[in-house]
Amino acid sequence: MQSELSKRIALEISGMPVIDPHTHLQHKTPSAQFIGNIFSYHYIRMELSTIGMDVENLMSENIHPDIRMKNALPYIPKISNTTTWWGFMTICKALGFEDDMIHDGNFQDLCDIAKETMQSEGWYKKALHNVNIKRSFLTNLPDEDLSGCDRESFVPSLRTDEWVLDIQEKATREKLELLTNSSITNIFDLKCAIRKVADRFVSIKSASMAISLPPNFLVFPVADGDADILYSKVLIGKRLTDDELARLQSYMIYSLFEICNDLNLPFQIMLGVDRKIHRRLEWDGFSTDLNMVKTFRDALNRFPKVKFVFSILNSILNHELAIYSKTFANCYFAGHWWYTFYPALIKTAILERLQAVPYPKLVGWYSDSYYVE
Amino acid sequence: MQSELSKRIALEISGMPVIDPHTHLQHKTPSAQFIGNIFSYHYIRMELSTIGMDVENLMSENIHPDIRMKNALPYIPKISNTTTWWGFMTICKALGFEDDMIHDGNFQDLCDIAKETMQSEGWYKKALHNVNIKRSFLTNLPDEDLSGCDRESFVPSLRTDEWVLDIQEKATREKLELLTNSSITNIFDLKCAIRKVADRFVSIKSASMAISLPPNFLVFPVADGDADILYSKVLIGKRLTDDELARLQSYMIYSLFEICNDLNLPFQIMLGVDRKIHRRLEWDGFSTDLNMVKTFRDALNRFPKVKFVFSILNSILNHELAIYSKTFANCYFAGHWWYTFYPALIKTAILERLQAVPYPKLVGWYSDSYYVE
Amino acid sequence: MQSELSKRIALEISGMPVIDPHTHLQHKTPSAQFIGNIFSYHYIRMELSTIGMDVENLMSENIHPDIRMKNALPYIPKISNTTTWWGFMTICKALGFEDDMIHDGNFQDLCDIAKETMQSEGWYKKALHNVNIKRSFLTNLPDEDLSGCDRESFVPSLRTDEWVLDIQEKATREKLELLTNSSITNIFDLKCAIRKVADRFVSIKSASMAISLPPNFLVFPVADGDADILYSKVLIGKRLTDDELARLQSYMIYSLFEICNDLNLPFQIMLGVDRKIHRRLEWDGFSTDLNMVKTFRDALNRFPKVKFVFSILNSILNHELAIYSKTFANCYFAGHWWYTFYPALIKTAILERLQAVPYPKLVGWYSDSYYVE
Ligand SMILES: [Zn+2]
Ligand SMILES: [Zn+2]
Ligand SMILES: [Zn+2]
Repeated sequence: MQSELSKRIALEISGMPVIDPHTHLQHKTPSAQFIGNIFSYHYIRMELSTIGMDVENLMSENIHPDIRMKNALPYIPKISNTTTWWGFMTICKALGFEDDMIHDGNFQDLCDIAKETMQSEGWYKKALHNVNIKRSFLTNLPDEDLSGCDRESFVPSLRTDEWVLDIQEKATREKLELLTNSSITNIFDLKCAIRKVADRFVSIKSASMAISLPPNFLVFPVADGDADILYSKVLIGKRLTDDELARLQSYMIYSLFEICNDLNLPFQIMLGVDRKIHRRLEWDGFSTDLNMVKTFRDALNRFPKVKFVFSILNSILNHELAIYSKTFANCYFAGHWWYTFYPALIKTAILERLQAVPYPKLVGWYSDSYYVE
Repeated sequence: MQSELSKRIALEISGMPVIDPHTHLQHKTPSAQFIGNIFSYHYIRMELSTIGMDVENLMSENIHPDIRMKNALPYIPKISNTTTWWGFMTICKALGFEDDMIHDGNFQDLCDIAKETMQSEGWYKKALHNVNIKRSFLTNLPDEDLSGCDRESFVPSLRTDEWVLDIQEKATREKLELLTNSSITNIFDLKCAIRKVADRFVSIKSASMAISLPPNFLVFPVADGDADILYSKVLIGKRLTDDELARLQSYMIYSLFEICNDLNLPFQIMLGVDRKIHRRLEWDGFSTDLNMVKTFRDALNRFPKVKFVFSILNSILNHELAIYSKTFANCYFAGHWWYTFYPALIKTAILERLQAVPYPKLVGWYSDSYYVE
Repeated sequence: MQSELSKRIALEISGMPVIDPHTHLQHKTPSAQFIGNIFSYHYIRMELSTIGMDVENLMSENIHPDIRMKNALPYIPKISNTTTWWGFMTICKALGFEDDMIHDGNFQDLCDIAKETMQSEGWYKKALHNVNIKRSFLTNLPDEDLSGCDRESFVPSLRTDEWVLDIQEKATREKLELLTNSSITNIFDLKCAIRKVADRFVSIKSASMAISLPPNFLVFPVADGDADILYSKVLIGKRLTDDELARLQSYMIYSLFEICNDLNLPFQIMLGVDRKIHRRLEWDGFSTDLNMVKTFRDALNRFPKVKFVFSILNSILNHELAIYSKTFANCYFAGHWWYTFYPALIKTAILERLQAVPYPKLVGWYSDSYYVE
């Protein structure tokens, strides 16, 4: 039972063209091809695991995606209360499946219907069109091959995590050397190489840089001289202390801010992920550090021309980040990320943001999707 | 004005048999006997005190419970907006009282009606039956006498706070020595004695261990050798530093996890109480430390067979704990504890949990009650 | 579409006389005189700035208030979704303006209508009367001239920030010396002078002391001897370390608690402001420190006769502060301050407070207004 007002709002929204500013789509294979691939998404795997399914064996990568799903049929009723499951059923229906439940009796039908739809000619464009998505941002590693990318549907975005969080890794440097055909012998070479990659992304009309940071990441200015010494230690293979690494990482993120400033690129920052909290299954979680928003205070003041577009993985700091978006002209607030992507949290967050922040400062939504479906 | 949907949900719920997994019922005297005893519950005392009643004198233990309530009559209108008061009036009505207010004019009636009901034959079973409670967990100290316990209505649960939080107290050791008829000369003797008590509780079909922890309690692995030295200091009466005590306490809780693992016992963990924040009246409060959930990360990974059943005293970490329950198969989320037991907080919490977590991982409710009424 | 119940509640509330316990009204010029002055309020300036208006130049103090507003007309549509804008339109309508939008075509009408209303005889009393406000607290600096103040409409309140947060500033001491015609040569002289000012405020029937504190402010007892030495350093112009300053500030706030205790004054404490987080435009923000409520535990226990009336700038600690108001008879919870003054946050906060805390412990609302309009 909807009120007149909600109907009018829903109608208005349904007519709007949508840009999806964060996805993990593969531009060469944007569709899942099999319903089992969508089912194997880690959101569902996690829920099956938590109610007792042995996902390591019964949903192993070595099994055909549809068989993985077949193995899970007995466990499905126990996860049927969740938003994740509602989302999956919504996808099934969009693919042409008509039942409300999935069980032994209709499982093969679902596989067939989904396969037929997803493997049909021109499907991925149709899928995006059906939900009014005009264009999707990709998430591209520095060395990703973007030749042949359908630039009408997809916009590249340069993912920079490795240049900050893994700056002490040899592999990070070697990849950059290979990519830029250069030799990195100090931190200034390193910044040059990064700038070259960024220039290349700009030349192919990338729309942004992006990074995801852990909750306790601190952002503060570090002197060139300090960073130079720290990176020399890295180059000769010495281990940095925690404090030294924090300084080097912060220096690197300020270097990226400078590049964004020079190249007029927005910076999409996703805050709060704790990587691999489940040791065996390597699942990520989140936690909250109350400095995680305010640590950007200096950078927001120092780079007024860089658009900082934040997403956050906890619900606690929604209010504080909304007020930051209102206070700083260069601070934007985007979407509902991952573990906040549930209706109750979205509703609270949207109300808090819409009442406090002028709407041009808000990015309503992004999908974080791995497949167009 | 309820929607059809809420009516259907209410009907479904009203038919379900309930297990109450945490109470402080006394198995020998589960009923309050006098309405004044229910009225003297610390929830109401605190509210009367905060609006200016001298509860130390006017509600002293030396006064008959019904007279304590009589003394409070003038103060009742000022607390009538709270959930606590609504709860008390609901109990009065369930006991047979029919008015909406309590005042000088009907106070004696209430006492009489309540007393007649509560002192009638077989009342406590009827009271539990009326609200569909099939079985209630008790909270039992290690040395509690459980002979003659009505095992159809009640299930013991071993409360272990003293073995962790008061491990440095002489009384803790002496009680254990007496209880197990043993001599404790080092930490391994101590663990043996605890194991003996746990074995006894398992032999009488106890269903769980339970503990309540302060918000800043840290849980991390401590080496046997370290704990051995620390406990030696305790045994010769030396005071531990704060850091040493934290290590010994953490060692003890890991020892309990091991026992739960061996004996296949769930561990009920209540997080976040600050004891005696009101110095004179000795009332407890709560606060939040943002490590209080994630400090269990190691233990959740290390003891996959132990069911950790968490309750939490703040509303801030509801979201994080819900995601933990979804991520770890051995992590469960229970009820709405004490200062979160208000309709608005319960509604928010239930939505956050039901949308994110498969329902077998959620324990809907427990009463924390002191009397069956 | 309102339910019968909401209508009844709204009617009840509309009949209640209101006391506004925190404003920044100037008793000599309580009205804004021009609509442009209301429009120039920092709430709206900030929203215009964040969507790209150059408020430094286009809304400079040197420009007539109504022209500032004229300059902003093109930007107004982009802030029209916010609660701030809704509030401004509500004020316009109360002044006699009838349109729903403001644009080039009706802007001059609005200025004329507003000016006529606001500059009419007896307006400010009428404005307060229209919204049922019987009396408003002022916020008065220690040296403010209160002669000729309309004591029927206004009640002074002594703002004490400088005696705590700026205690190390020479100007603080010099102002006190001037005001009390005394010479301050040690901390006891200082306390004497403050007491004299407080006595003067009591003699003109001031109703309270008030202070606003940053989120990381710690409140703990400091020995006279320690404070004496620290203040000697201040007097000879030595810089205090951060830790020394924290001790001196905490000593000062305890001194104010003692004065409130002696003079039977409530203490209004506003928690959580971060000053000037936007460096260029000098706008304030807020953040959360999880100690900011519980740091008052000692003071609440130590001064049972002092009424502590707290407001808070984040929504995270609403629950904890509500429970403090329930636990401590001398702890009160007031209103919805500044960045929490949005309908969604107010609704959540009111439900949490009304369900948990007896209503005499709650102060429903205050305006924080700079003009009566
Ligand atoms: Zn992503
Ligand atoms: Zn309990
Ligand atoms: Zn103010």
